[in-house]
Amino acid sequence: MPSTFGNALRVTVFGQSHSQAVGCVVEGLPSGHVVDTEALGRFMARRAPGQGPWTTPRKEADLPRIVSGLNPGGATCGAPLAVVIENTNTRSRDYDNLMAVPRPGHADYTAWAKWHGNQDVPGGGHFSGRLTAPLCAAGGIALQILAGHGVRVGAHLLSVADVRDEPLCALDNAPASRARLESQLDALADGRTFPTIDAAAGKAMLAAIDDARRELDSVGGVVECVATGMPAGVGSPMFDGIENLIARAAFGVPAVKGVEFGRGFEAARLRGSEDNDPYRMVDGAVTPVTNNAGGALGGITTGAPVLFRMALKPTSSISRPQESVDLTSGSDATLEVHGRHDPCVATRAVPVAEAICALALLDALLSFPPEPQA
Amino acid sequence: MPSTFGNALRVTVFGQSHSQAVGCVVEGLPSGHVVDTEALGRFMARRAPGQGPWTTPRKEADLPRIVSGLNPGGATCGAPLAVVIENTNTRSRDYDNLMAVPRPGHADYTAWAKWHGNQDVPGGGHFSGRLTAPLCAAGGIALQILAGHGVRVGAHLLSVADVRDEPLCALDNAPASRARLESQLDALADGRTFPTIDAAAGKAMLAAIDDARRELDSVGGVVECVATGMPAGVGSPMFDGIENLIARAAFGVPAVKGVEFGRGFEAARLRGSEDNDPYRMVDGAVTPVTNNAGGALGGITTGAPVLFRMALKPTSSISRPQESVDLTSGSDATLEVHGRHDPCVATRAVPVAEAICALALLDALLSFPPEPQA
Amino acid sequence: MPSTFGNALRVTVFGQSHSQAVGCVVEGLPSGHVVDTEALGRFMARRAPGQGPWTTPRKEADLPRIVSGLNPGGATCGAPLAVVIENTNTRSRDYDNLMAVPRPGHADYTAWAKWHGNQDVPGGGHFSGRLTAPLCAAGGIALQILAGHGVRVGAHLLSVADVRDEPLCALDNAPASRARLESQLDALADGRTFPTIDAAAGKAMLAAIDDARRELDSVGGVVECVATGMPAGVGSPMFDGIENLIARAAFGVPAVKGVEFGRGFEAARLRGSEDNDPYRMVDGAVTPVTNNAGGALGGITTGAPVLFRMALKPTSSISRPQESVDLTSGSDATLEVHGRHDPCVATRAVPVAEAICALALLDALLSFPPEPQA
Amino acid sequence: MPSTFGNALRVTVFGQSHSQAVGCVVEGLPSGHVVDTEALGRFMARRAPGQGPWTTPRKEADLPRIVSGLNPGGATCGAPLAVVIENTNTRSRDYDNLMAVPRPGHADYTAWAKWHGNQDVPGGGHFSGRLTAPLCAAGGIALQILAGHGVRVGAHLLSVADVRDEPLCALDNAPASRARLESQLDALADGRTFPTIDAAAGKAMLAAIDDARRELDSVGGVVECVATGMPAGVGSPMFDGIENLIARAAFGVPAVKGVEFGRGFEAARLRGSEDNDPYRMVDGAVTPVTNNAGGALGGITTGAPVLFRMALKPTSSISRPQESVDLTSGSDATLEVHGRHDPCVATRAVPVAEAICALALLDALLSFPPEPQA
Repeated sequence: MPSTFGNALRVTVFGQSHSQAVGCVVEGLPSGHVVDTEALGRFMARRAPGQGPWTTPRKEADLPRIVSGLNPGGATCGAPLAVVIENTNTRSRDYDNLMAVPRPGHADYTAWAKWHGNQDVPGGGHFSGRLTAPLCAAGGIALQILAGHGVRVGAHLLSVADVRDEPLCALDNAPASRARLESQLDALADGRTFPTIDAAAGKAMLAAIDDARRELDSVGGVVECVATGMPAGVGSPMFDGIENLIARAAFGVPAVKGVEFGRGFEAARLRGSEDNDPYRMVDGAVTPVTNNAGGALGGITTGAPVLFRMALKPTSSISRPQESVDLTSGSDATLEVHGRHDPCVATRAVPVAEAICALALLDALLSFPPEPQA
Repeated sequence: MPSTFGNALRVTVFGQSHSQAVGCVVEGLPSGHVVDTEALGRFMARRAPGQGPWTTPRKEADLPRIVSGLNPGGATCGAPLAVVIENTNTRSRDYDNLMAVPRPGHADYTAWAKWHGNQDVPGGGHFSGRLTAPLCAAGGIALQILAGHGVRVGAHLLSVADVRDEPLCALDNAPASRARLESQLDALADGRTFPTIDAAAGKAMLAAIDDARRELDSVGGVVECVATGMPAGVGSPMFDGIENLIARAAFGVPAVKGVEFGRGFEAARLRGSEDNDPYRMVDGAVTPVTNNAGGALGGITTGAPVLFRMALKPTSSISRPQESVDLTSGSDATLEVHGRHDPCVATRAVPVAEAICALALLDALLSFPPEPQA
Repeated sequence: MPSTFGNALRVTVFGQSHSQAVGCVVEGLPSGHVVDTEALGRFMARRAPGQGPWTTPRKEADLPRIVSGLNPGGATCGAPLAVVIENTNTRSRDYDNLMAVPRPGHADYTAWAKWHGNQDVPGGGHFSGRLTAPLCAAGGIALQILAGHGVRVGAHLLSVADVRDEPLCALDNAPASRARLESQLDALADGRTFPTIDAAAGKAMLAAIDDARRELDSVGGVVECVATGMPAGVGSPMFDGIENLIARAAFGVPAVKGVEFGRGFEAARLRGSEDNDPYRMVDGAVTPVTNNAGGALGGITTGAPVLFRMALKPTSSISRPQESVDLTSGSDATLEVHGRHDPCVATRAVPVAEAICALALLDALLSFPPEPQA
Repeated sequence: MPSTFGNALRVTVFGQSHSQAVGCVVEGLPSGHVVDTEALGRFMARRAPGQGPWTTPRKEADLPRIVSGLNPGGATCGAPLAVVIENTNTRSRDYDNLMAVPRPGHADYTAWAKWHGNQDVPGGGHFSGRLTAPLCAAGGIALQILAGHGVRVGAHLLSVADVRDEPLCALDNAPASRARLESQLDALADGRTFPTIDAAAGKAMLAAIDDARRELDSVGGVVECVATGMPAGVGSPMFDGIENLIARAAFGVPAVKGVEFGRGFEAARLRGSEDNDPYRMVDGAVTPVTNNAGGALGGITTGAPVLFRMALKPTSSISRPQESVDLTSGSDATLEVHGRHDPCVATRAVPVAEAICALALLDALLSFPPEPQA
């Protein structure tokens, strides 16, 4: 189903940019987890609009209301958990001219081709980045449950335009590297304003974003995400492996055009002797010495950090005039987009990457754990 | 389910490298399609082992037997179509030492961590590249049905190690470019030995592969695949869009570590004004002037060619000694892999990319077509 | 997934008896249907509590709020349609003693055995009959869409205790019988207070229910449901046939213990020559002369009315003292149930049967329609 | 998907009556189970044709070949297990006249309405009772795995026409009754020719079947099935409960027209005080004193035996002339069915009921077990 993903853990997302509400239903959460609503609010605030010059001025409380799935003690109770987030600040009028003239790079035209005018146009409807809010609500709860299993998830902006952050220290699985990675994750979780490891890189990214904004344009970026603490043996072969689950969810995030694991595309240039991760016994456990695989082989975790990157194209809604067509008259047209848009959607996609990573990994843990030993 | 994918069209793959047979069941094929078994055989021969110096010496007839799903006239009849391919040439003895010492980069260890010794070890079991044979059988039939809808799928080796082929002419959607793309597809379908557009690049790739083989090593590569003729409006938002369907299937192909669409990771460096594909009316139809999106926006086709690339890491089974562990004794060990292995799995992944593309697109056409107009 | 059913049309139900809200998400609705909210309200009122002496005194507005899935014109837009129904009148205190002492016949004990105390106890949690409200919201919309396809669904109380209503005239497919069936459906849709065809039977049922209530007891009943206007060729063999889809949904209605189609259990006593429905050409169309099959053969519609019955056990929550156990102390205990309960859940299950029938048939029409002819 | 069912355990059935082979793929079997192929053969022999005067003379070896899913030691290995059963004895000629004139009561006409002539007609194609052979292969393996968990499944013919066997002693959960039930199951498993508890009833049923056969007619019957040893807390609310899973599978068995659990339809005539199963502590465990519920409440097991009945209509293929139509000419026609058919399909449905019960319960145990206690 288009707006649903997962196996034993299943998330269904609903809502449009300007519908009464957006939200999600999460089935299959383990029972007994007391949701930390404050931590959830903090997590969701990281993707909320209106935080700085690099995001859209649309301000929303984005308060997720958990309307079902908890028992009187506030713990998950085995029933589907539903989250409703009201849409309080919508300005549909801004989108009036989009009814007929589709924005290049957006789903306006493809939605029209599919639904022949029945689609909900304002704000991009169900295709809006707004739909990542319920994804983050679901993912934020998954993050809390994973933390109880010793799994930690963190992401940062690896690049914006041509500016590049220091990478997460996750391709090398040596003890010292693991410590470095943990300190990177601590710093990212620390709440600093802009999600980079290297503050100077962050500053340069902000400048690049501001340049684009001032030129009525937008820029793309790459988000890198890691999960530590996943035990070996989780996942499955072929079509429901760790990579399949994460990739399917990641391509559900608006603007994502590429997903790679471990060395990713770079591995295509390597020799096997360079790319293979040797094993050693470390503290009595089988341990990959390096992590070029990104934490999974054959769809199943190796015990090393799960590492992936997702590429986001530049925001398609830009204010400069663009060539388009008028769907009503069937003639060429020029489009000027009004409304409020992030000049770089990658910035707000950082917590979204954590959310979908958490959902995919919790699903893997619940659906495809290591089998019980006889 | 791990070994199943698709919605209205569903493929379930079974078999292990050294089981009695491998095969697949395909549910949801439209009825009335007379399977061209000769064309199917030719398609499957493209991925069969033993074709040249760059592939494994294991020779298999790979004759797919369609044991159900056809009516007496040889046409699909609405019932599940099952394909059985016998495993006739297996040498399990080669794998005896792998029972205890997992190959770096392969799923040997992760399967052990999941199934505690119950997994089928010889030849990599269900994780073997052998399982791409039934995928190609299913995909080969999907290709025939798509051809009946005017959809054509073709792939080539874009790169091996640092050698790069000319790209498919699919990022530019101008009429001249479309013609150039068709001629590229014609040449690829022509049956030339090595699947590149530029013969010189192919020769250089073969040299690179041979270098690796002689050094008891392996190399990675990138496969690029395109589908032309998909109408606009096919697919769906969020988690079952064109990209999600293709990516989920692509990561089911052994050794794939990255998937990107259109400009892919490069889009992350662009401005919106560069990456957005403008629309123009061409011959009365809304037409994206360029195709940086790779044929899909919001998970739904634009009418431009669907274009993706998948990165394959180097073959993990290499003959040089590697550091590993002995799972029985729990101590460090050195591994020397015997058996027959391709030094570059990317070469045989070319028809596999076509197969999974065809399956994903036919599923999209059947599951998420444009809605009928009122 | 436990709380989800359907294929191309998928319904996910959320909520507990005493959670903030109950609701559902419906994916896959055809776009362009303007929801008639007034008609939806009337339909839902038929299952609402507090209507007469035979139902629970709990009164709820049961106003379904459609928070997503509609475009500005009030028509379905292709995005998931979400319904939220607030729980405004809950008296959790009534259930305090049920925390430890499970009600015989209810899911209290089995939920405890599954979730070890994390389950939401008040009002039966996710197992409450309250969850049929969102099912009716989804089903009410499906009924409207089916009506646009010429499909009509109606149900009545066939029996309560030993009192029996006149059956729907749907086992005989003769033109006169069809007319009689239509007039039965007209009468049932007419809004008469109690859903029987024969008013005298209704009166006797009410008396039987009142008897039970006065004796602090409850009674069971059978609901019979029919759908006319389904074209032949809809559905599929084996596990997603018309019967499978309806049965899976029907057993999701609390208290249902049996489901049968056409002659149902009676067919087990017949000869083939009695049970087979002969075909004749009627007005140029292949037509089953009788309808012992209940409108489906091999899981696929015959064109005759789809007919099923579902048996509901007596309400398990009764006020007389019952033998139970104290789960805390692990000792025998006597239970006296307080709270408000229908003495006969079958009465309110009549519109619920229509709802699940509509959802199952609309799913069948969207997922498994007759194939397009070449 | 039509020919697939299950969640964590998933069965896909393929084949037609006269295709090269029938078979199935089973995904999600626990690893490490050594398949007892002799026991599997004995189980499958119980449904094989040609056993006595009450079955079709078509004789088939029905030898299931397990072509994948086992490791070299013959144990399940985590990969999909595929079973292929060759169709060796097919006489398609018998069905020539059915191409145009559909058998009343069979799926001939509905398949034509769906696939417009592309369907595989001979022997009923994918709708044939032949497809229960792979179901029994899958179910026979599930039975072996369940036995390892202390779960035992058995079924008998409760009735044929108006002849009734003694019921299974499963509605009363007292210790003495449990012992009686076990002895009934022992006797049924003992291999006696005809699957009744009361030999005299079996004799009378055989006579009734022979009467029908001699009169070129057929009779229906009811199969009753029980599973003992299921722990409490297995299953889930709403649409994937024990009843939903079993019912969905049961309606996949050709000729099934009704399914009921515990008291079933009889419960609709009872009072709550009669139908509710009281709890008592027995040997330190919460125990339902009676089992009117049939072992499940709210879709979750109670710990009492799971008990269901399924009604099978009389075999539709009878030799007496019947009224039908000629689909080619669109005119009324008279049909005389040739070919070999059981006069009572219910007899061979006894092991099939066990098979689908085992598959549904193993799926429930794997998909929806009691949650691990904190």
